Amino acid sequence: MITLASDFGSPYPAAMKGAILRRSDARLVDVSHDLPRGSIRASAFWLRETLPTFPPATHLAVVDPGVGTDRAVLVARAGGHTLVGPDNGLLVPVARRLATGTDAGVDWFHADPGDPASATFHGRDVFAPLAATIHEVVTARGVGALDDHDRLTPAEPVDCRLPEATVDDDRAEGFVLAVDDFGNVITNVPGDVLDGRTAVRVNGREVPVGETFGAVEPGSPLAVVGSHGYVECDVNDGRGDEWFGLSPGDAVELGGVE
Amino acid sequence: MITLASDFGSPYPAAMKGAILRRSDARLVDVSHDLPRGSIRASAFWLRETLPTFPPATHLAVVDPGVGTDRAVLVARAGGHTLVGPDNGLLVPVARRLATGTDAGVDWFHADPGDPASATFHGRDVFAPLAATIHEVVTARGVGALDDHDRLTPAEPVDCRLPEATVDDDRAEGFVLAVDDFGNVITNVPGDVLDGRTAVRVNGREVPVGETFGAVEPGSPLAVVGSHGYVECDVNDGRGDEWFGLSPGDAVELGGVE
Amino acid sequence: MITLASDFGSPYPAAMKGAILRRSDARLVDVSHDLPRGSIRASAFWLRETLPTFPPATHLAVVDPGVGTDRAVLVARAGGHTLVGPDNGLLVPVARRLATGTDAGVDWFHADPGDPASATFHGRDVFAPLAATIHEVVTARGVGALDDHDRLTPAEPVDCRLPEATVDDDRAEGFVLAVDDFGNVITNVPGDVLDGRTAVRVNGREVPVGETFGAVEPGSPLAVVGSHGYVECDVNDGRGDEWFGLSPGDAVELGGVE
Repeated sequence: MITLASDFGSPYPAAMKGAILRRSDARLVDVSHDLPRGSIRASAFWLRETLPTFPPATHLAVVDPGVGTDRAVLVARAGGHTLVGPDNGLLVPVARRLATGTDAGVDWFHADPGDPASATFHGRDVFAPLAATIHEVVTARGVGALDDHDRLTPAEPVDCRLPEATVDDDRAEGFVLAVDDFGNVITNVPGDVLDGRTAVRVNGREVPVGETFGAVEPGSPLAVVGSHGYVECDVNDGRGDEWFGLSPGDAVELGGVE
Repeated sequence: MITLASDFGSPYPAAMKGAILRRSDARLVDVSHDLPRGSIRASAFWLRETLPTFPPATHLAVVDPGVGTDRAVLVARAGGHTLVGPDNGLLVPVARRLATGTDAGVDWFHADPGDPASATFHGRDVFAPLAATIHEVVTARGVGALDDHDRLTPAEPVDCRLPEATVDDDRAEGFVLAVDDFGNVITNVPGDVLDGRTAVRVNGREVPVGETFGAVEPGSPLAVVGSHGYVECDVNDGRGDEWFGLSPGDAVELGGVE
Repeated sequence: MITLASDFGSPYPAAMKGAILRRSDARLVDVSHDLPRGSIRASAFWLRETLPTFPPATHLAVVDPGVGTDRAVLVARAGGHTLVGPDNGLLVPVARRLATGTDAGVDWFHADPGDPASATFHGRDVFAPLAATIHEVVTARGVGALDDHDRLTPAEPVDCRLPEATVDDDRAEGFVLAVDDFGNVITNVPGDVLDGRTAVRVNGREVPVGETFGAVEPGSPLAVVGSHGYVECDVNDGRGDEWFGLSPGDAVELGGVE
């Protein structure tokens, strides 16, 4: 199985599919082609939260504002999965998550990009063909075969760390990691800061703490522990990003109320 | 085959796919992840019109504004198909349609939701794993095996009926069921009210009746019998919702002209 | 393998998938359902650039503003591929591209449309069932079997030619073929007019020539040779269509600077 993720929208992902299917009859699964455009950190967050739901697979992920520059081509092996994408930090958080709880850590490789036909569409010309090739090797001989693949060289990747929140007794300072399509504002503040609270101040505005959206009336705001384990600032049947005035990267201060 | 439908946008559907593929190697087919957000009735319309085009399959559908509350988890068996989703009415119209013309009606079950990891993403934590489990059971032993599945109990579902139009000799009163991505306004008025007419008044504005969009000039409005069998208020090469000023749920009165 | 492309958005493509899967268990691959709505020429461009990345397949493509009128149903055979769609020009550029470099040209057929259930959704009622039928025939007996298929008749298609640019020593006049989801403006001016230049005037405004987006600062404009081989007017980490004020069909004049 090869999963595909990108910020390409449509129809560029189809050219990646075609390039893969000329080289492999792997099952293809679209993860998303609407990752936050050009945003490595927010896209890295979504990959980290989504790809570990899959059984071991080859994951092709391309959010690549540096396409055609001298940024390298990265392959990672973690927890039985293989990841292929640009060496710009995108794959780092998900690879670490996939390796969590395994004895081995992440093994990183740079790949020979070959001689791409274009300077601006490495998804089609570099990453998709490479993912297909890697997938065929791994399917035939296991993930161990990456160690002696002639296009791969052990490497240190460009790093990418999602920012961590600071949590004190009565308050937490963090950032907005992402806003989902519902308008839910996903912060990086660990959900357990809401333990035992019935209300909380978000950047000074007091809102109730609920277990789920339906804890408040439609149109009303609340703080919940979201499905990623972080504090989310949401509106039941509405858009939290608009009510709270928050966008990815914005600072969030949570203050205890009771 | 498992089909997937939701109002999740992107990338949450991928977490449902991953959760299924850890448990089943079923073929996955995306129906839509842009069902009308949070709108059970309009989403139920689209499911009713779309899923019956498929051969017998397991259909996972999640439009679930009450996620994490005490709404139940529903499984339906109808016409050789199996449906999995929230018990909020979403699955009722499509299940009845799938059972139409069969000797058996619809069999409804509540399912044990297990102990979900989150309160806000039951698509990933409850419905997708359940759909995979149900699919494997049905594939191995047929839809009859649902009767003695230990997670299922016979149940009466929360009902959902799409509104019906009233039709007199010279006029019809109905509602807008949905607006499609072209801007076509799909009413619940049966198409045969247009029989023999060359023009009709829609909320007082006279427009020609055509067999298809090309019956009028680009940019011009018309009434047609749409592909669902209902009267649609459309604009050739334009948006009917804008020209007619109509949105889902709005009242529509059709008056005869000639 | 059957690929699917349309301007349908969501959820109409699912009805095409259902209609196919009732008749064939072919692998389905979505190309795009967001082709430029109602625009035959721009959609034909995207099909021409995308479908040739695939191995030989059956390609279903529906951008069909004349649905339900007397426009014919077209099947094309080219380079081992089979194309199915409306006879409105949509399939012509891609069929010619697929046949390029092969001994045979394109073979065109009109297909008996049968008796469709609707006048406005031939994707579901005509094209998808036909694509499934054709695919089964080709899979069983090869593309040669199209010659004696009882629903097919040799035909001349409605033509569609993408406009060509005129190139002189110091300037080129062309058109915008498409704007992609990044906002990159894809012209029909061959990329080699940028050879040896470090800057160029686009409709009178001078911008640098770069090999890729990263050649200029984020937010800055440039001209590049895009992945289709044409001159593109782009902005690094921004929207070229907005900066250059260009939309599909607009005239573009490129003047040499140095």
